Amino acid sequence: MSTKESALSIFALGGINEIGKNMYVVQYKDDIVVIDCGGKFPDETLLGIDLIIPDITYLEENRDKIRGMIVTHGHEDHIGGIPHILKKLNMPIYATHFTLGLIELKLEEHRLLRDTELTTIDAGTTLELGSIQASFFKVSHSIPDCLGIVFKTPEGNVVHTGDFKFDLTPHNNEYADIHRMAEIGKEGVLLLISESTNAERKGLSPSEKMVASHMDEAFLRAPGKIIVSTFASNVSRVQQVVDAAKKTNRRLALLGRSMVNVVSVAMERGYLNIPDWMLVEARDVEQLPPEKVAILCTGSQGEPNAALARLSTGNYRDVSLYPDDTVIFAASPIPGNERDVSKIIDNLYQLGTQVIYGSGSSTGMHVSGHGYQEDLKFMLTLMKPTYFIPIHGEYRMLHHHGLLAESVGVKRDNIFIIKNGHVVDVKDLVARQTRSIPSGDIFVDGMGTGDVGSIMLRDRKLLSEEGMLVIVVTLSKTERGIISGPDTITRGFTFDQNSDQLIRQVNKLVTKTVMELQDENVRKWNVMKQNIKRSAGQFIFSQTRRKPMILPIIIEI
Amino acid sequence: MSTKESALSIFALGGINEIGKNMYVVQYKDDIVVIDCGGKFPDETLLGIDLIIPDITYLEENRDKIRGMIVTHGHEDHIGGIPHILKKLNMPIYATHFTLGLIELKLEEHRLLRDTELTTIDAGTTLELGSIQASFFKVSHSIPDCLGIVFKTPEGNVVHTGDFKFDLTPHNNEYADIHRMAEIGKEGVLLLISESTNAERKGLSPSEKMVASHMDEAFLRAPGKIIVSTFASNVSRVQQVVDAAKKTNRRLALLGRSMVNVVSVAMERGYLNIPDWMLVEARDVEQLPPEKVAILCTGSQGEPNAALARLSTGNYRDVSLYPDDTVIFAASPIPGNERDVSKIIDNLYQLGTQVIYGSGSSTGMHVSGHGYQEDLKFMLTLMKPTYFIPIHGEYRMLHHHGLLAESVGVKRDNIFIIKNGHVVDVKDLVARQTRSIPSGDIFVDGMGTGDVGSIMLRDRKLLSEEGMLVIVVTLSKTERGIISGPDTITRGFTFDQNSDQLIRQVNKLVTKTVMELQDENVRKWNVMKQNIKRSAGQFIFSQTRRKPMILPIIIEI
Repeated sequence: MSTKESALSIFALGGINEIGKNMYVVQYKDDIVVIDCGGKFPDETLLGIDLIIPDITYLEENRDKIRGMIVTHGHEDHIGGIPHILKKLNMPIYATHFTLGLIELKLEEHRLLRDTELTTIDAGTTLELGSIQASFFKVSHSIPDCLGIVFKTPEGNVVHTGDFKFDLTPHNNEYADIHRMAEIGKEGVLLLISESTNAERKGLSPSEKMVASHMDEAFLRAPGKIIVSTFASNVSRVQQVVDAAKKTNRRLALLGRSMVNVVSVAMERGYLNIPDWMLVEARDVEQLPPEKVAILCTGSQGEPNAALARLSTGNYRDVSLYPDDTVIFAASPIPGNERDVSKIIDNLYQLGTQVIYGSGSSTGMHVSGHGYQEDLKFMLTLMKPTYFIPIHGEYRMLHHHGLLAESVGVKRDNIFIIKNGHVVDVKDLVARQTRSIPSGDIFVDGMGTGDVGSIMLRDRKLLSEEGMLVIVVTLSKTERGIISGPDTITRGFTFDQNSDQLIRQVNKLVTKTVMELQDENVRKWNVMKQNIKRSAGQFIFSQTRRKPMILPIIIEI
Repeated sequence: MSTKESALSIFALGGINEIGKNMYVVQYKDDIVVIDCGGKFPDETLLGIDLIIPDITYLEENRDKIRGMIVTHGHEDHIGGIPHILKKLNMPIYATHFTLGLIELKLEEHRLLRDTELTTIDAGTTLELGSIQASFFKVSHSIPDCLGIVFKTPEGNVVHTGDFKFDLTPHNNEYADIHRMAEIGKEGVLLLISESTNAERKGLSPSEKMVASHMDEAFLRAPGKIIVSTFASNVSRVQQVVDAAKKTNRRLALLGRSMVNVVSVAMERGYLNIPDWMLVEARDVEQLPPEKVAILCTGSQGEPNAALARLSTGNYRDVSLYPDDTVIFAASPIPGNERDVSKIIDNLYQLGTQVIYGSGSSTGMHVSGHGYQEDLKFMLTLMKPTYFIPIHGEYRMLHHHGLLAESVGVKRDNIFIIKNGHVVDVKDLVARQTRSIPSGDIFVDGMGTGDVGSIMLRDRKLLSEEGMLVIVVTLSKTERGIISGPDTITRGFTFDQNSDQLIRQVNKLVTKTVMELQDENVRKWNVMKQNIKRSAGQFIFSQTRRKPMILPIIIEI
């Protein structure tokens, strides 16, 4: 990037037109600062893919300019990609005490802990990252210890909000520092980068504190065990469950690996306060009177292997549910997970348990961690930016966030609805988006990382919907005729009473095709394979209306 | 079924613990009456399956007792299975004028129209079906001409509600006949079978009429074309769009095959009134001033090949959308479709159009056709049944419907939360559920119908998530050693820079495995295949953490 073009550049490597894999970059001349590196969970079209992370080609090509990565908070969509990209491109990481705890868990799992430079920051820290100075301000969200960032550059100040809401009565004193935000705004913000998750939702995001009274009431009423499922990282929510258990003298068991891990980090680092008498091992739960038991578990999104799913089908070794028990969903289904969650609710009712569930804040057991429209307008008003880039959301959310910015006075031409890889360049206080750098999805599949590739995904889709036929035929190198076969083996292909007959007909047709080609002296295996594919494919389609994958194999001896 | 056991039996062949494939049966001694025969759309775990229909084994085994099928209304989840089961088991069909119109479309497509006995009924009809007398009452729903059914049997009266809500201000005069319902209740209902779709929703279902004012306002405001997407079968909704177009002097184009077909049926049969001047062909739309155009299209559920999806990506041949255009979703996403719908909204915003969308009735452009809790209690109160079976819903809905019945005075022991195939037998006015008949999912896949089978689905799932390796090795019938191969071909298997090397290693390992078995004089191909599978599988897992399908093929010459 030549300085002729621009001194200050801002872009996203992930997080735009999607929920997940957040990764943003601020570059001033030869200094690059990275913000977050999240993962994204694949939808059902990405068959067999475990995780999606950002393409960091640009960073790899400019590795000598990278001054480090600042992580705003510890959610998966902000830290999930870190171990995968560190393997290709190591860099110092700056994050708060709690966030670092969660990152360290990941680095340990990937055996990267020893080789990564980790620095703890807080809202009072100032970092000098080459010519870029980063300072911070506290924001409220659904995980402890979240920061927004102010980047001071010779071109002007750039603010990144992190994920936030304005919660005036947060739990665990996770207050947003509104006074500091006002100072930053007064000092002057050239460009604001702000999250858009709830830009479609009217009003002000409800406070985390509203959960406490509902939780307490449910705990008082429940005649048997009480099971609360929520995100382990929502430490305020976990604390409210602990508080309700305390008031009702219930002991608390933790089910699910991430619940145990994250609660440990939160306790060790002082973000969660659980009385000594309270915790009990899962295997001891059945010994206690049910009305003296509370359980915190993973699986609120319907994940089929998580603790809650197994409890709901009676497949959790140490704990069983009974009709007097009460299950609370203290989380709202993320779009795409509704059906899995519904299945679990059905299973729980079939066990006879009480279930408290519902979308959004309807049950009082959940509030969103992301600001609604009024929160977003409040941030825009505090910061009074000249330029604005809505991030962290699908297109319709960015679109609505843009309208909100306009409504509080940002000029329409100064709002950039960008894509991943689009670069906003600022020169002489004028911002423009005219160029792009490489960006995209990198798939993590098993232990490998790479572009699984559209051909492979197309193959998987075809295999999954239509199945396949492998047709093997053995030919001689020297003579005409067929030595062995054709043999046709099917996998995942349409069941039909007549399928044996169909296969016999396919084999006959392949024999005919091979013979004809031999008569024409065609010796190229590729041509022969194409012909087998075509004739068998057409025949199968005419008989079954299916188009399975056809894999002809020619053995030559 | 011997008459010793029971005189009157009621059961479901589909529709319980699911939304879809509704099929219910009332049997009195040797007379069987079938109610509805719906289809269900498969979720993403049923790879490649097109439709699910009920298992009718019981009916096939008792075909001489079947007196006919009564169809309550024309929605897919009540008529979608009809052509498929008629091929196996023909029977007379009774339905209202509009419902028959939709059934005829299906029968025509499957070339069954000539061979099926169809009888038009209305709310005044009485049918003598052996010893069972069926009469009807009108209910309001989101499609015209819906009926509930009263079965008079020597054992007592059984009422099936059909799908319903209480809409006191319906559009198109689709009034529920509350007076008739009251009469039926007064006469005495032994057993009520009632739908449960919205049993989780508090209050009373809002009226269809609320849509009109919102639709009119949107039509008045829209500066360009206006595009409304809804279910074609919701004729009242379609009529409201027509009315709004009339008030604003817009011409109307219909996009999507089912929109054209269903509107034709509705017009021909007098359920829809479109002025002569209004309809315009899609290809002529671009000639008209945009503010004089309205479009009704399919695709409100995000179906990727429907008209709306193609409009949203600029891939509809005859019509393009521009920033002045307004798109209205006059339907709520069915659970599971949220992500597909969101993608279309994003695409529309990227084209610059206005979009009116939102879940439930939030935009005023959609109301549910199914009664909420107060509607369901109203029905229960009118009918005052001795026994109650909640149907048409997933377990949690049936559960809540059961609680509603209890709250209005049905005895807890008289409420049967059954499964598909569970039979409720009534003898001497006492109802019991102690036995079951066969039931289940039959898959329609291409032109075939059958049990696609769990092995096939497991294969498809494995292929789709992990891909496959075909390993071919050619051996001699008579001698040791390998004549050709091993050759390994992969499809849909993990991409990796080192995959060539991996395949070479697999081939080496297979060679070793084959040689060792030959040394041990193992000549059984199955044993050899098992060994190849195991050794190659273990090696691949150790290298990649993936477990692809391995298909060893041994050619013997």
